[in-house]
Amino acid sequence: MANEATKQAAGADPNTRGTVRVGIAGATGYAGQELVRLLARHPLASLTMATGSQATSAPRRLPALSRIWEGDVVPLDVPALAASADTIFLALPEAASADLAPQLLRAGARVVDLSGAFRLRDDAARDRWYPATGALPRGVAYGLTEFELSAIKAARLLSNPGCYPTAALLALLPLAKGGLLAEGSDIIVDAKSGISGAGKAPSDRTHFCENHGSVAAYAAFGHRHTPEMEQALGQQVTFVPHLVPLDRGLMSSVYARLSPGVTAAQVEAAFMSTYAAAPFVRLSGDALPEIKHVAHTNFCDLGWKVDEANRRVFVVSVIDNLVKGAAGQAVQNFNVMHGFDERTGLL
Amino acid sequence: MANEATKQAAGADPNTRGTVRVGIAGATGYAGQELVRLLARHPLASLTMATGSQATSAPRRLPALSRIWEGDVVPLDVPALAASADTIFLALPEAASADLAPQLLRAGARVVDLSGAFRLRDDAARDRWYPATGALPRGVAYGLTEFELSAIKAARLLSNPGCYPTAALLALLPLAKGGLLAEGSDIIVDAKSGISGAGKAPSDRTHFCENHGSVAAYAAFGHRHTPEMEQALGQQVTFVPHLVPLDRGLMSSVYARLSPGVTAAQVEAAFMSTYAAAPFVRLSGDALPEIKHVAHTNFCDLGWKVDEANRRVFVVSVIDNLVKGAAGQAVQNFNVMHGFDERTGLL
Amino acid sequence: MANEATKQAAGADPNTRGTVRVGIAGATGYAGQELVRLLARHPLASLTMATGSQATSAPRRLPALSRIWEGDVVPLDVPALAASADTIFLALPEAASADLAPQLLRAGARVVDLSGAFRLRDDAARDRWYPATGALPRGVAYGLTEFELSAIKAARLLSNPGCYPTAALLALLPLAKGGLLAEGSDIIVDAKSGISGAGKAPSDRTHFCENHGSVAAYAAFGHRHTPEMEQALGQQVTFVPHLVPLDRGLMSSVYARLSPGVTAAQVEAAFMSTYAAAPFVRLSGDALPEIKHVAHTNFCDLGWKVDEANRRVFVVSVIDNLVKGAAGQAVQNFNVMHGFDERTGLL
Amino acid sequence: MANEATKQAAGADPNTRGTVRVGIAGATGYAGQELVRLLARHPLASLTMATGSQATSAPRRLPALSRIWEGDVVPLDVPALAASADTIFLALPEAASADLAPQLLRAGARVVDLSGAFRLRDDAARDRWYPATGALPRGVAYGLTEFELSAIKAARLLSNPGCYPTAALLALLPLAKGGLLAEGSDIIVDAKSGISGAGKAPSDRTHFCENHGSVAAYAAFGHRHTPEMEQALGQQVTFVPHLVPLDRGLMSSVYARLSPGVTAAQVEAAFMSTYAAAPFVRLSGDALPEIKHVAHTNFCDLGWKVDEANRRVFVVSVIDNLVKGAAGQAVQNFNVMHGFDERTGLL
Repeated sequence: MANEATKQAAGADPNTRGTVRVGIAGATGYAGQELVRLLARHPLASLTMATGSQATSAPRRLPALSRIWEGDVVPLDVPALAASADTIFLALPEAASADLAPQLLRAGARVVDLSGAFRLRDDAARDRWYPATGALPRGVAYGLTEFELSAIKAARLLSNPGCYPTAALLALLPLAKGGLLAEGSDIIVDAKSGISGAGKAPSDRTHFCENHGSVAAYAAFGHRHTPEMEQALGQQVTFVPHLVPLDRGLMSSVYARLSPGVTAAQVEAAFMSTYAAAPFVRLSGDALPEIKHVAHTNFCDLGWKVDEANRRVFVVSVIDNLVKGAAGQAVQNFNVMHGFDERTGLL
Repeated sequence: MANEATKQAAGADPNTRGTVRVGIAGATGYAGQELVRLLARHPLASLTMATGSQATSAPRRLPALSRIWEGDVVPLDVPALAASADTIFLALPEAASADLAPQLLRAGARVVDLSGAFRLRDDAARDRWYPATGALPRGVAYGLTEFELSAIKAARLLSNPGCYPTAALLALLPLAKGGLLAEGSDIIVDAKSGISGAGKAPSDRTHFCENHGSVAAYAAFGHRHTPEMEQALGQQVTFVPHLVPLDRGLMSSVYARLSPGVTAAQVEAAFMSTYAAAPFVRLSGDALPEIKHVAHTNFCDLGWKVDEANRRVFVVSVIDNLVKGAAGQAVQNFNVMHGFDERTGLL
Repeated sequence: MANEATKQAAGADPNTRGTVRVGIAGATGYAGQELVRLLARHPLASLTMATGSQATSAPRRLPALSRIWEGDVVPLDVPALAASADTIFLALPEAASADLAPQLLRAGARVVDLSGAFRLRDDAARDRWYPATGALPRGVAYGLTEFELSAIKAARLLSNPGCYPTAALLALLPLAKGGLLAEGSDIIVDAKSGISGAGKAPSDRTHFCENHGSVAAYAAFGHRHTPEMEQALGQQVTFVPHLVPLDRGLMSSVYARLSPGVTAAQVEAAFMSTYAAAPFVRLSGDALPEIKHVAHTNFCDLGWKVDEANRRVFVVSVIDNLVKGAAGQAVQNFNVMHGFDERTGLL
Repeated sequence: MANEATKQAAGADPNTRGTVRVGIAGATGYAGQELVRLLARHPLASLTMATGSQATSAPRRLPALSRIWEGDVVPLDVPALAASADTIFLALPEAASADLAPQLLRAGARVVDLSGAFRLRDDAARDRWYPATGALPRGVAYGLTEFELSAIKAARLLSNPGCYPTAALLALLPLAKGGLLAEGSDIIVDAKSGISGAGKAPSDRTHFCENHGSVAAYAAFGHRHTPEMEQALGQQVTFVPHLVPLDRGLMSSVYARLSPGVTAAQVEAAFMSTYAAAPFVRLSGDALPEIKHVAHTNFCDLGWKVDEANRRVFVVSVIDNLVKGAAGQAVQNFNVMHGFDERTGLL
């Protein structure tokens, strides 16, 4: 029996271990590699196919994954992918996702999409921010796990949230839903993201020397994660992301006004009650969390300060942009979709 | 003649070169070392004495300054220091500055103080934020160079601004003085500072591993640079500084509401006219500046975005916290105090 | 059954899960925290006690471990520690280990020591390099897992190797044992370590600003990991470690001469045969491995280049200094000591 | 007079200031930008033209140079460039330099070339390592300033050394020329370079995320700076460069055997006498220098350790790869070529 447990712990034959066959399209990008890492170790999933834009064997392209997943990354073949897996994760540009997802759904697969193709419900907003994605399929669930459990459970097409909205909404929704924010309050989300958030493609923007020793704001008033936040909150948000010189992780610093009379205790209660049963949200109160605490994990850590006299609240929300902000939340949603414990494969 | 010029360019005997004798108290901290570096090369100053808390020879303690300044850092001896120099720079904790500055003034020296001892004019504010500094001497000039030229010119005691207020006020004052900000607007200053801002003393907070790969907010609603900003602006400011994993440099991301009808052109005009004659403020408009552009320089770079429809303005202000945020602005003020070109020794 | 597997995967009650009770002394240092992280998730171990120099509750001191291990770090109480666990990990300074280990052994516990107290067998060498550690207890096993399996299996006191010797010896032993190195060859080990290797105590050496943008050699010809390498190799080694500006990870660049006639194929064969059954050594041949590939894992990646004409060999060996170089190898050894699969809890 | 000095110090009209007209081809790369920065401030040079591969105005492309040099980067026009300047710096790929330099020489200009086109004197070596560069023009001087003063003084075509050879040769030549190295000694140069050494072109290799938290060896036994070192030393060198996660700076860790009987005092004397008159070489003895000490300067700092018993010597040599390893040494050579103090414009 110790033998059996050992075997399982050490990662025996995946073919006998998993109960759900999963595939990944776009396995060589940063989020895609993180999906491979998580799904290869997931005790209730069996990773049967991973595709990339170029045919490569993973051990050559992804040396860090050697001994973790020994499969080959193969060229995309839609029928083969659809046949290989029950649930398919898409870590692709939004236009590719918009094209591929409907085909896979028709073939009977469930789809977890990590792009922005299916995040905005409003047609005009989608036309503006994601013009290459066309009409929205019916029955898309928005995968902010902590707030959408029942929709996720039933979803055949799951739209995984953006990294910035994940961190910002987990900070803001308890206050907004609790009615604690002043009407008409400016809501400011000043975000700081590691460079992996800018993607794997080499560019001036991702060059080491342009970021080392520097911080850069970008897309002020013009980032497409803004309408995603506004859709969930039902009000305007001022959002400015910044690149900071680190690899993985993201902090949202959130500023807002409280309604008259709201106390620090009410703010704390809103967070405590909202996340009482959420395994991946950790609350630290006025000990403000740091990016380092959540790197390489699926946690979102939240801390806050309240200035009752001036009715101000400041919330710090940190996540690993590739885990809770992408692949980790995707697996968390996969777990919910299949009735597994949310934490499976993520601790 | 070419010979003469060569000699001067290459840094000949400082005793014959300078016209103002200068001294430094607190030469081994980060700001102090930067002062040594700048004043040793200043063509119109002669660095005659540098003191530290412990007697050390600079070449041993400060290997990076070998061949730049070959003097010895000596223990503090107040009469000797007062006798050695016409203008004395203090890079000390505020309590030490509050004690030392009056003595040096009485001895006839002019003083440029880099601590917070003399920044706040309101007694109650000073009691709260700088309790160890006692009563404010008369005739202190606040050294935000671009806005205080005539007071600085006449000053015998110059109080150099904090690094965060320098960046924030250079961003905000053109808008506030121009009447462009909405009455009652929340003003949010979200700052990102390199670790040298936390000082040279080793601590958990300055440990490499606590900062690498991380970002940390601190002192939310409770940083003593807040009242300094509010004093200059005449209104409440929400200020939260963050530590980012880099050595030198600081960005202030500033968010505010514009008065009804204010246009982007008016915002640009306010910046252009305010800084038309300022040699160290560079305006980049909607090409937002980055910390990297100003590291190791005395520049403050400003960029901004205006959202007319929603009356929002976002300003990015970057400086090197040890130069424009400390030693460089101190030398700039020294130049003004002595009628020199502001740029002398700083380009 | 899916339910059972889910429960196990998600980390159910540790009291029912583990079969070996383990304790940790020194749980708040970097290696100690990594031990907590690994042992809290180990499916065949139950972490019953963790001690620190100060009484603290882990969630306060170690925010990154919240939800991973919810126990309290308690003050060291030797009888309580001995009673709490069957195997005890010591992540302490060597003098403390030298004092504590014999007491725990007498109380019947098995001990895995991460300090240098028990690494050197020669008394004169121990007197010189670890003077505070006294006589060597009998029956110590040296825990370089890949080369000491049978001794480790039987050990009651396991001395975990130093981080630098682990990386260097895994690179050199296949060549040395295979007789491929020229007699009298200089062996140069130029190592580059992240700052966590310098420990958690704040100092000038670990200050962020002293390391950012810098590289520093230290302890040239005088590091106590040198005799540990020489003991295992039976010959002199020139070893110089360098600090590089990163958090975790270590590279050893190894230079040596080959015996006359040795071919690149023989070098490859030596590595392949030595590590054919080693789950944590990955061979990449002339695709030289990088620190990034092994960070946060227990892998040692090895790559090499051979210059047959000049009889030179160059080997790159990378590990995470806190995992394979400390806590991970300790757990790997624990697995061997208990007859578990080496990989248990480490993948 | 104070007025005059102020004007000069503050950077008055460059047209009246300089006595030598200089031009730069390739002004937008990292070395090219550093040349602009240095020459724009050089008191005896007047920067008249800077060309880039694309026509751009510098303030747009090079925001960090605003207020430092306000000229425009223009497309390359060979006759215009030749007519504009007396001395022209080439910061181009070697093939472009090999094509351009002869044209400029024929037009009467003196040329300082920063590429590898003219570094190797041996035709076979040039064919192998720089195949696109053709035959070597006559009268090339190799610009390792400290060892080639008279050749540099007379040179019309100056070949600036590679960054790695600069650091390695300044460490090794005093020992080699002093006859202190054992015959047949292995000489190992293990170098660590910041990422700017890999150039400004975006690539997987220069992506932030591939370097943050990592170290990578490359071109082992195959880097073209090796023959440059061997040419100067007259013996084989084992050279392996590594990329470390920082922007600017380079360390060479040099290992060699000493001849029988050589003492530590002799090693020190060799360094002291060789560099007694060298303004940019700083000797720190057994206080090993760090990259941080030389960043943004033209210094080469040297420190060393001697193990007399085992006849081993270890030398650490650090430079800023873009200054002493490229643009700074080029300006130093320019100063020598024109009879100026070596330090002019570099302190």
